[in-house]
Amino acid sequence: MSDCPLCLAANETLVWRDGSCRVILVDEPGYPGFCRVVWNHHSAEMTDLNAGEQRHLLNVVLATEAALRQLMRPDKINLASLGNVVPHLHWHVIPRFADDAHFPQPIWSAPLRTAAPRPAPPVATLSATLVAMLTEQTAG
Amino acid sequence: MSDCPLCLAANETLVWRDGSCRVILVDEPGYPGFCRVVWNHHSAEMTDLNAGEQRHLLNVVLATEAALRQLMRPDKINLASLGNVVPHLHWHVIPRFADDAHFPQPIWSAPLRTAAPRPAPPVATLSATLVAMLTEQTAG
Repeated sequence: MSDCPLCLAANETLVWRDGSCRVILVDEPGYPGFCRVVWNHHSAEMTDLNAGEQRHLLNVVLATEAALRQLMRPDKINLASLGNVVPHLHWHVIPRFADDAHFPQPIWSAPLRTAAPRPAPPVATLSATLVAMLTEQTAG
Repeated sequence: MSDCPLCLAANETLVWRDGSCRVILVDEPGYPGFCRVVWNHHSAEMTDLNAGEQRHLLNVVLATEAALRQLMRPDKINLASLGNVVPHLHWHVIPRFADDAHFPQPIWSAPLRTAAPRPAPPVATLSATLVAMLTEQTAG
């Protein structure tokens, strides 16, 4: 859709993509490594996809989780597909740390503290690790 | 774990269960139909499960989404696996409506209005619809 920001895909920091979906690094202050997995086609809900498409998108979400866990050792991973504002299927994959701004609350609640500074993994490293995790899924 | 409320599984409104996971109806004021899909075993992250377990849990999450969409026709479904407070794998499956207390914001943000009243689907109906959706997945 011409007015959908996730269809337009402008100014994205691309980590990985294929013909179906893409993984982008989100520029969210205090949340290094926050990734979004975006379905390329404009669909609103997981159950608007067929079974093969669902499986593929979720595999990419889980490979992103695995890559972020390996690189950042977060205290928790948060996964969410909301899309109330932008109803174009996308998953938030968020490494959470006990000293981040909202822990243990969701990042959408009121902040509890100033986030401890923490470097984001370099995009090239994240990209290579994600590819390794996807390869492992296929082999497994 | 003996001190984990999701291991204890007390006072739950059970919609469906098998040996691996269960679907419960959440008693959250203003959010009729809000379900939680809980992995029975105490694991924290999706990538702590093996591939077959991941697929099974996500199939149940998506069947729950499908059942809630059929019964309630929500404006959006929200899916989330957070677990920062209770690190025992569980998925929130939340029917969202434009006139609920937080829309279009996540339910964890500050409320914007008083939720419009809306009946929850009866547990027996939800349970039967979920079974039908799971059967459809197996057939599909």
